[in-house]
Amino acid sequence: MPTTIVGANVNDKANFVTIAYCGIIQHRPPMLAVSLGKIHYTNAGLKENRTFSVNIPSEDMVEITDYIGMNSGKTIDKSRLFEIFYGKLETAPMIKEAPLNLECKLIKVLDFDGNSEVFLGEIVEAYAKEEILTNGLPDIKKLKPIIFSMHDNNYWQVGEHIGKAWQIGSECEKK
Amino acid sequence: MPTTIVGANVNDKANFVTIAYCGIIQHRPPMLAVSLGKIHYTNAGLKENRTFSVNIPSEDMVEITDYIGMNSGKTIDKSRLFEIFYGKLETAPMIKEAPLNLECKLIKVLDFDGNSEVFLGEIVEAYAKEEILTNGLPDIKKLKPIIFSMHDNNYWQVGEHIGKAWQIGSECEKK
Repeated sequence: MPTTIVGANVNDKANFVTIAYCGIIQHRPPMLAVSLGKIHYTNAGLKENRTFSVNIPSEDMVEITDYIGMNSGKTIDKSRLFEIFYGKLETAPMIKEAPLNLECKLIKVLDFDGNSEVFLGEIVEAYAKEEILTNGLPDIKKLKPIIFSMHDNNYWQVGEHIGKAWQIGSECEKK
Repeated sequence: MPTTIVGANVNDKANFVTIAYCGIIQHRPPMLAVSLGKIHYTNAGLKENRTFSVNIPSEDMVEITDYIGMNSGKTIDKSRLFEIFYGKLETAPMIKEAPLNLECKLIKVLDFDGNSEVFLGEIVEAYAKEEILTNGLPDIKKLKPIIFSMHDNNYWQVGEHIGKAWQIGSECEKK
């Protein structure tokens, strides 16, 4: 799973929560899903403003990423932990230190009577630091995202290159 | 993004498609979302049987994983590429060679008038090879899943350990 930091304004103040239940659900228009436990402080802010951000921390941010996952916005003021900026939606706080930020408009909230709410958002803008780009697009080896494994609760780097997609499969045709 | 192989019976025959748009959306009950482009052959089978599987290939399966992503079930018979088994749902084909299989019941299909359909499923059973377990749970370093990066279309290994979740963050409190 990817390690992401979801941002939303709660009571007019930026708040953030570390989330691994995040995935892309559509390419065009670009959409993603984030699942937030109902206990989280952030959920009300997403619903109120109908905007949120998904920030991708790099591995050098692992301590602060874990810290904001360990502590609720009810008890600490997370707006002071980062340099924050806002984009065209005006109410989705984004983290300047994170090399990649996705600014999202809330499209739908799903509730399956379980322990989470699922927020589906359209990505209206993406912001990336120049140094993580190759040919104008995010490069995973420069971005250095944090992979999360559950139950054992560990963070991992992205490792070695295995192969080229839509290419390495042609080896099977030869066999 | 994770690299997964989604399985479904199409016209009573097992078919598989390689998908990176897959993410967990709820812990309890366990649910996931897979997004399949509307052009895919597999979609009709998911809707017909209302069951599907998500198989996690290990890095030694990268060639066959890419191959089934490159070729449609319309043109090749993918039921012969793997040893297939069925579980309690009876119509969700799973791949024996894959070290981890999630058997899913279709709960909801979402369509945002884009190029994909989003299938939300409840995981009713998980099957894992003994050799990827540590203390009875899947171990990411033994599973060796394939990470996918888009646009540049590359497959990657999971790399080195960065830290322990709900632990490394306490370093911030000391600062």
